[in-house]
Amino acid sequence: MNQDKVLIVGAGAIGSFYGALLSKAGADVSVVCRSDYNIVKQHGYKIKSHNLGNWTFKPAQVLKTATDYKGQTDYIILCTKVISGTDRVKLIQGAVTQNTCIAFIQNGVEIEQELIDAFPKNEIISGLAFICCNRKNPGETHHLAYGKLTLGSLNKKEQTSNRAQNLSDLINRAGIESIVTDQIISSRWLKCLWNAAFNPLSVLSGGLSTEKILSTQEPLIRAIMQEVMQTAQACGHPLPAESIDINIKNTQLMPPYKTSMLLDYENHKTMEIESILGNTVSAANRVRIACPVLDALYALMKLKELSQKNI
Amino acid sequence: MNQDKVLIVGAGAIGSFYGALLSKAGADVSVVCRSDYNIVKQHGYKIKSHNLGNWTFKPAQVLKTATDYKGQTDYIILCTKVISGTDRVKLIQGAVTQNTCIAFIQNGVEIEQELIDAFPKNEIISGLAFICCNRKNPGETHHLAYGKLTLGSLNKKEQTSNRAQNLSDLINRAGIESIVTDQIISSRWLKCLWNAAFNPLSVLSGGLSTEKILSTQEPLIRAIMQEVMQTAQACGHPLPAESIDINIKNTQLMPPYKTSMLLDYENHKTMEIESILGNTVSAANRVRIACPVLDALYALMKLKELSQKNI
Repeated sequence: MNQDKVLIVGAGAIGSFYGALLSKAGADVSVVCRSDYNIVKQHGYKIKSHNLGNWTFKPAQVLKTATDYKGQTDYIILCTKVISGTDRVKLIQGAVTQNTCIAFIQNGVEIEQELIDAFPKNEIISGLAFICCNRKNPGETHHLAYGKLTLGSLNKKEQTSNRAQNLSDLINRAGIESIVTDQIISSRWLKCLWNAAFNPLSVLSGGLSTEKILSTQEPLIRAIMQEVMQTAQACGHPLPAESIDINIKNTQLMPPYKTSMLLDYENHKTMEIESILGNTVSAANRVRIACPVLDALYALMKLKELSQKNI
Repeated sequence: MNQDKVLIVGAGAIGSFYGALLSKAGADVSVVCRSDYNIVKQHGYKIKSHNLGNWTFKPAQVLKTATDYKGQTDYIILCTKVISGTDRVKLIQGAVTQNTCIAFIQNGVEIEQELIDAFPKNEIISGLAFICCNRKNPGETHHLAYGKLTLGSLNKKEQTSNRAQNLSDLINRAGIESIVTDQIISSRWLKCLWNAAFNPLSVLSGGLSTEKILSTQEPLIRAIMQEVMQTAQACGHPLPAESIDINIKNTQLMPPYKTSMLLDYENHKTMEIESILGNTVSAANRVRIACPVLDALYALMKLKELSQKNI
């Protein structure tokens, strides 16, 4: 069996963790990382996982840009945040060849088309990570909980393609659950149900945990989720009727949790407002679904971002 | 002419300023003040007005509670914030006699009935101050801009009553505009149009000025105002169709302004969430007007209040 050549672009907490898993499973994994380049180049990543133990992940190549990649990539896995100002196509195009399968493990809805349009000949895999991990120090990734990776091909180039399944197998082999679905776009909307509610509310509330928000303002959570449900349905991706109840129940069972937007806000980093809220509102407008609460949240988050820049 | 005996209850910035004006115009003005009691008892209030100059207002009686008032009040003017935990009836009842006219200069909608029910035999006057003033130091009130006081009787005890007009005349005599209207409840809704939009947004945005909010998120401002308009109309107090445009235009002409809720939030004080948003949402529910954006703002402000208490 040939060793899969994988390039992780944007090897922060999530990118380095899944890269480390693929490496563990036998793939040849390289990374593009900017902020921690020097330390990773020298020492690799220290991975500390709550259930898989600690190990060092030494990437095959540590690069500042995808263009520097030596060889032919079988997979590029894009793991950056999706924020305005970050050109996802430009980030990867230097390492895309005819045979490259492009995967992205990123938040948000309707973020597929940009890559499909830019690389019409390449298979594109959409990935969703249900994971809690963060970058503690430079080159140090802590995996705190969960980890399940859901993958789905958006444009299989041949019926026999098993690129998504192969990626998923590697992750499973490394000890983390991964599944392949042909409903990846619905899965993305389902994840958005949670993200569109708890991410903005955690920031707008002034830093409350999911538990505090849910225990005091459940009707607002439900109203937001309802608007996302209606939008997903009108976009052709109906979610199961019980999705909201299940999401609420699961969140009640979670330990009090700081959302990724709240962590970004507290660390003065750009929040994923566009990919989560902006794209949902745009989709709702396109399919003529009224979404007054999402509109308000989106506007409020833009104001919050403005005040963040003013500080 | 008999000298009117006035008791200001809650003599903070607004109470002390209008009290000082009434005293200037010849009334016998006493105050109930808690936090600055000692300094006011000794030195009175230093009033610094942008257009009326500086003077000292020495109240006839400085009291810790209305029950301590000596004599018979012609007017009690309630100027506290309207927040849960503050019992407005209890605050004044010790000084209410048969002849007392009870006025309140306070923010919010649907805050009348509590006083009408508690004092069915007394004339109740609803007052709205359009003013920018604050308490700089203990016993020191700065009047920065505007000042117009709008008064309206809610239950004239006789057709010939001119209690509201008399109060208004005194304010005018002191050099500040005041008018009497028989549309005071509509005026209150009109003020709520502005308050329900800019107060919460200034807090939720993280402290942006009215100018920044309006120049970037005007559609949200309009959506909020539209819901208040519809609620007011269904409650029997239709506002002029051009009210929203006028409010927006006036706000564009104002200098960048920090709202009272934002000042309260920054000073770790209780915000008037209930009287402005809570009462509007309750009214909308009662008259079956959908107000998804107000619902969301109210819930978000309750979360913000929760995080304020957690800090």
